[in-house]
Amino acid sequence: MSGIVVQNISRANPQTIKALAQCGVATVHEAQGRKGLLAPHLRPIFPGSAIAGSAVTISCPPGDNLMIHVAIEQIKQGDILVLAPTSACEDGYFGDLLATSMQARGGVGLIIDAGVRDIGDLKKMDFPVWSRTVHAQGTVKATLGSVNVSVICAGQLVNAGDVVIADDDGVCIVAREEADGVLQSAKTRLVNEAEKRRRLAAGELGLDIYGMRESLAAKGIKYV
Amino acid sequence: MSGIVVQNISRANPQTIKALAQCGVATVHEAQGRKGLLAPHLRPIFPGSAIAGSAVTISCPPGDNLMIHVAIEQIKQGDILVLAPTSACEDGYFGDLLATSMQARGGVGLIIDAGVRDIGDLKKMDFPVWSRTVHAQGTVKATLGSVNVSVICAGQLVNAGDVVIADDDGVCIVAREEADGVLQSAKTRLVNEAEKRRRLAAGELGLDIYGMRESLAAKGIKYV
Amino acid sequence: MSGIVVQNISRANPQTIKALAQCGVATVHEAQGRKGLLAPHLRPIFPGSAIAGSAVTISCPPGDNLMIHVAIEQIKQGDILVLAPTSACEDGYFGDLLATSMQARGGVGLIIDAGVRDIGDLKKMDFPVWSRTVHAQGTVKATLGSVNVSVICAGQLVNAGDVVIADDDGVCIVAREEADGVLQSAKTRLVNEAEKRRRLAAGELGLDIYGMRESLAAKGIKYV
Amino acid sequence: MSGIVVQNISRANPQTIKALAQCGVATVHEAQGRKGLLAPHLRPIFPGSAIAGSAVTISCPPGDNLMIHVAIEQIKQGDILVLAPTSACEDGYFGDLLATSMQARGGVGLIIDAGVRDIGDLKKMDFPVWSRTVHAQGTVKATLGSVNVSVICAGQLVNAGDVVIADDDGVCIVAREEADGVLQSAKTRLVNEAEKRRRLAAGELGLDIYGMRESLAAKGIKYV
Amino acid sequence: MSGIVVQNISRANPQTIKALAQCGVATVHEAQGRKGLLAPHLRPIFPGSAIAGSAVTISCPPGDNLMIHVAIEQIKQGDILVLAPTSACEDGYFGDLLATSMQARGGVGLIIDAGVRDIGDLKKMDFPVWSRTVHAQGTVKATLGSVNVSVICAGQLVNAGDVVIADDDGVCIVAREEADGVLQSAKTRLVNEAEKRRRLAAGELGLDIYGMRESLAAKGIKYV
Amino acid sequence: MSGIVVQNISRANPQTIKALAQCGVATVHEAQGRKGLLAPHLRPIFPGSAIAGSAVTISCPPGDNLMIHVAIEQIKQGDILVLAPTSACEDGYFGDLLATSMQARGGVGLIIDAGVRDIGDLKKMDFPVWSRTVHAQGTVKATLGSVNVSVICAGQLVNAGDVVIADDDGVCIVAREEADGVLQSAKTRLVNEAEKRRRLAAGELGLDIYGMRESLAAKGIKYV
Repeated sequence: MSGIVVQNISRANPQTIKALAQCGVATVHEAQGRKGLLAPHLRPIFPGSAIAGSAVTISCPPGDNLMIHVAIEQIKQGDILVLAPTSACEDGYFGDLLATSMQARGGVGLIIDAGVRDIGDLKKMDFPVWSRTVHAQGTVKATLGSVNVSVICAGQLVNAGDVVIADDDGVCIVAREEADGVLQSAKTRLVNEAEKRRRLAAGELGLDIYGMRESLAAKGIKYV
Repeated sequence: MSGIVVQNISRANPQTIKALAQCGVATVHEAQGRKGLLAPHLRPIFPGSAIAGSAVTISCPPGDNLMIHVAIEQIKQGDILVLAPTSACEDGYFGDLLATSMQARGGVGLIIDAGVRDIGDLKKMDFPVWSRTVHAQGTVKATLGSVNVSVICAGQLVNAGDVVIADDDGVCIVAREEADGVLQSAKTRLVNEAEKRRRLAAGELGLDIYGMRESLAAKGIKYV
Repeated sequence: MSGIVVQNISRANPQTIKALAQCGVATVHEAQGRKGLLAPHLRPIFPGSAIAGSAVTISCPPGDNLMIHVAIEQIKQGDILVLAPTSACEDGYFGDLLATSMQARGGVGLIIDAGVRDIGDLKKMDFPVWSRTVHAQGTVKATLGSVNVSVICAGQLVNAGDVVIADDDGVCIVAREEADGVLQSAKTRLVNEAEKRRRLAAGELGLDIYGMRESLAAKGIKYV
Repeated sequence: MSGIVVQNISRANPQTIKALAQCGVATVHEAQGRKGLLAPHLRPIFPGSAIAGSAVTISCPPGDNLMIHVAIEQIKQGDILVLAPTSACEDGYFGDLLATSMQARGGVGLIIDAGVRDIGDLKKMDFPVWSRTVHAQGTVKATLGSVNVSVICAGQLVNAGDVVIADDDGVCIVAREEADGVLQSAKTRLVNEAEKRRRLAAGELGLDIYGMRESLAAKGIKYV
Repeated sequence: MSGIVVQNISRANPQTIKALAQCGVATVHEAQGRKGLLAPHLRPIFPGSAIAGSAVTISCPPGDNLMIHVAIEQIKQGDILVLAPTSACEDGYFGDLLATSMQARGGVGLIIDAGVRDIGDLKKMDFPVWSRTVHAQGTVKATLGSVNVSVICAGQLVNAGDVVIADDDGVCIVAREEADGVLQSAKTRLVNEAEKRRRLAAGELGLDIYGMRESLAAKGIKYV
Repeated sequence: MSGIVVQNISRANPQTIKALAQCGVATVHEAQGRKGLLAPHLRPIFPGSAIAGSAVTISCPPGDNLMIHVAIEQIKQGDILVLAPTSACEDGYFGDLLATSMQARGGVGLIIDAGVRDIGDLKKMDFPVWSRTVHAQGTVKATLGSVNVSVICAGQLVNAGDVVIADDDGVCIVAREEADGVLQSAKTRLVNEAEKRRRLAAGELGLDIYGMRESLAAKGIKYV
């Protein structure tokens, strides 16, 4: 089952991707019905990045980064690598040399349910990574995995070409074919939130804005 | 047992609260006999904040933030929300809209033994949160909990109106009625520490300052 | 078995130590054959430090920091304390007073498989610590441990006088007697990496630079 | 604050305690409004035990079991020790010698948010323990804690004399003064459950027994 | 997206399912190319069960078991419930009443990436469960989820009607349409293993049976 | 550094080893001054085993069991394999075929800081394993490690030929050259414990047997 490299994958519209990045992870996640969010053990190696891109996926054995080299050849401008080991691993699969190669090919970030290293250099290069851990322990390059197959990364299904959105809140996946629709929902949501924020900032209560008092009373709330 | 909202709670003296914030968590914890410290899995979402305030407590089910809306109505100037789910949960109960509402009502921070989201915005708003995790996954608003009842948050009992002190070292609770006494002890402790710091900085050893050599010898220490 | 303090330990050449710090943890770890790396649960309390020094080791019971006071007397200019509790513990063994004492004696940092506190002050003092956790909960000073005996810290054997290298990637131990050889290997490695970085930045692929295509074909890779 | 031993504590009625044991942890927990349940990291060291008794509480430092010896003197027939360390610890505080002493004094079990050892012997003695871990690593006996003060054990407040119920599902605390009332609720609940069990076993659906179909439709369920 | 109940799902051949149960999880997992294995934090509540069945899937919020009642109506003889909460949760969603209902409808077991309770009763009923934890803390019944939609449970995609195989080694999913092919591979594998077992039991070495000596020499192994 | 197989190792006296098994892990650990105990995350796959033997050690990459095949050739009657991966891994390195081979060569058990599978079969074979987890996920056989070099397994240094003692309490290592001395201490300890057990069973208190009352008073204990 391993050893497959899918070369031509479809990607979402670059404008859509860019716009989704600006909406942010929390909003996009809500906008698509609360699906696609990776587990919160994935954290950014430095704060403040907010990116989106098309997923180039990697499935590989624990402690073996052979397939990252294979995957980088498949990178197009704006892509994000998404690496899922076949069993839990904290090794540092990726460091500044691979990031240099990624950037040279147009890659903009890495999502990895494992470890990363050289994080001082990665910060200097402004190459963002969301990882399970930071670990200087490297890997071997001995065993095949696959590239651009469907993977489950940090609890979510990721297909090659899906849109990856990542910021300080975490990482969310939007199915490629749903990206335009999700963007519309996210924009609507942002408009609604702006209005709510204005009212809340003025001191109105959510209890009133959302009309919750009646429902609370029906549930039996008691003020004492 | 749920569905209770206690509306009028007593709070400690605002001057005392302010002064306790300046003492810091580690000092206050020592000053009150090493009690009241929340478990270290609660971490600040950004470094450098140091706050104190009166606790408005929330007990709520996992994955349900209905009661935060109820609790915000109970907030007075300088209060801090303390949220304890009834079983372990990492969902993002709280984001920038709730923080906007909190700030509009005078709330100064959140202690939550669960998840938080929109942390980029919270940092911009300078709204500090100490949480178990960061998670963009939101909650439902379906089931009652209680507000201003006693809760156990991250391993410590918190009563409504207790003083909450939080900084980069974590979160400590001071019982409302003990706050003035603890502040006196903390101030004494700070004076003592300043003197010790001066002597240690001059190269004196703790072994000598604390007179430990004799006791070490009695315990059988061997220098080889 | 406890209660031993070894007073005169050998240290590596200060020039070697300084040069190893500049190589960084990931490179040194690779250069010595991927050994000596402490487990990744040890993290720096603030980013950006990169230090190296000779290990003064401490073995002590959980929740008891008596031996830190003993160990500080053994510190020489440039040393790093390495503390391993005899069973897992997250207490805050170390804070700003001990750091003040350490700095006065020439100590440059702490590696601790337990907790630390006063991290706001430690950051102001620029005193770096790599720890398992941050915890304001202090310790007692009741029971002997040992200083400068061999310890296992975060999964690695550390002998007194070994070289400790620590940066944002973690902590690596180099045996004192191997330090000069490891430095040579690390330097060679850095030169090689610079050349690889240049080629990768120019858009060459690792697949070609490392000659991996033939080996991948032999393993049965399929491009589809 | 430490070093207190409260000698005369009130206990619930022995008949009530015995009857609560027969109701089981899950039923009692429901019967008292879903409170008092210790966190699920406490597990029995062997399956099949189901006990109840009055809590004799111990607060003690990590890695120090001095106070267990003090507490055993306070044990009356049918009591259960409840030990909470002041910070997280996995040391083996308790083994077959202490269990022998407990049994000789009438103690019937141990709840410990830390480690236990000699579990082969404890099983032979039929002395049940609910613990965080099994660990042969012993402790020191150097520092005072307290006995029969209020403690927070595995996330719950336990007062001396409270009723402890423990079985394969975990451990639940019933406040001493509420024990009789909780027993009545638990008995009612058992009767109701027996009837429900009979109907469910006959093939009726919960959807019908609990009348859930209308509510599901109102929430918008769609059968496809 | 929630609130969907898919009523008519396809199932694999009952003979195939029965035969897969006899092959066991480890063999089936290998036979299908090492895919479909749920994460090892799922453990049986008692040892010795080995079952297989068709998956009836449940997606539901943390701490809310409303949809289990809905799902049980969809159970056919031999089915297994597979429950995945939408975020991490350890609550006890399922106990002896629901198990009674399941058994009355022909259900044979539960796979749940959350908690379970009443495990003493479940053992007496011989109703096997593989769960993340044991927890007497129950849930609410307030919010819709979905039944027989695709879920990701303990890191694996599960579609309704997929074959679930579970024993002391864990839980493996076989896609419904691949079940017959996987069974053939598993049977072949068992025959091969029997022959290998015979040779190994007779003292032959894997080094010789698998012809590994030459490859080891090529990799540079050194016997000293 | 990898790829080394040390073929001739020294072992402790078989009578000593056998006698240490009978003393048990907790007693041996105490008898040698509380050292050598592996971390408590290693648990037996079934209860009731109590073995001792000489360590044949394996260092190997995560997810790669090639070296187990190499190590089995080095097994002598009564040996125990001790496997430490070079970084944290939960894969199932070992199952019933390897156990069959081990038993045919005289091996009596496995200590593995990783996963194991086929545990139903291993129980039937009465082949005991202490592991970090149970996981049906197998490994590759691609990369060299070493056999009979010093390893750090679950936090302890293990040299080839050291005595491994394992029972329900965990796993303890006794240095080969210290085995006879430790056995003497353990026997003395057992005699002392028998006497203490007799007195405690008769109702005497540890407070009196160990003469603790005076020391407690000196520390300031207060009976109230």
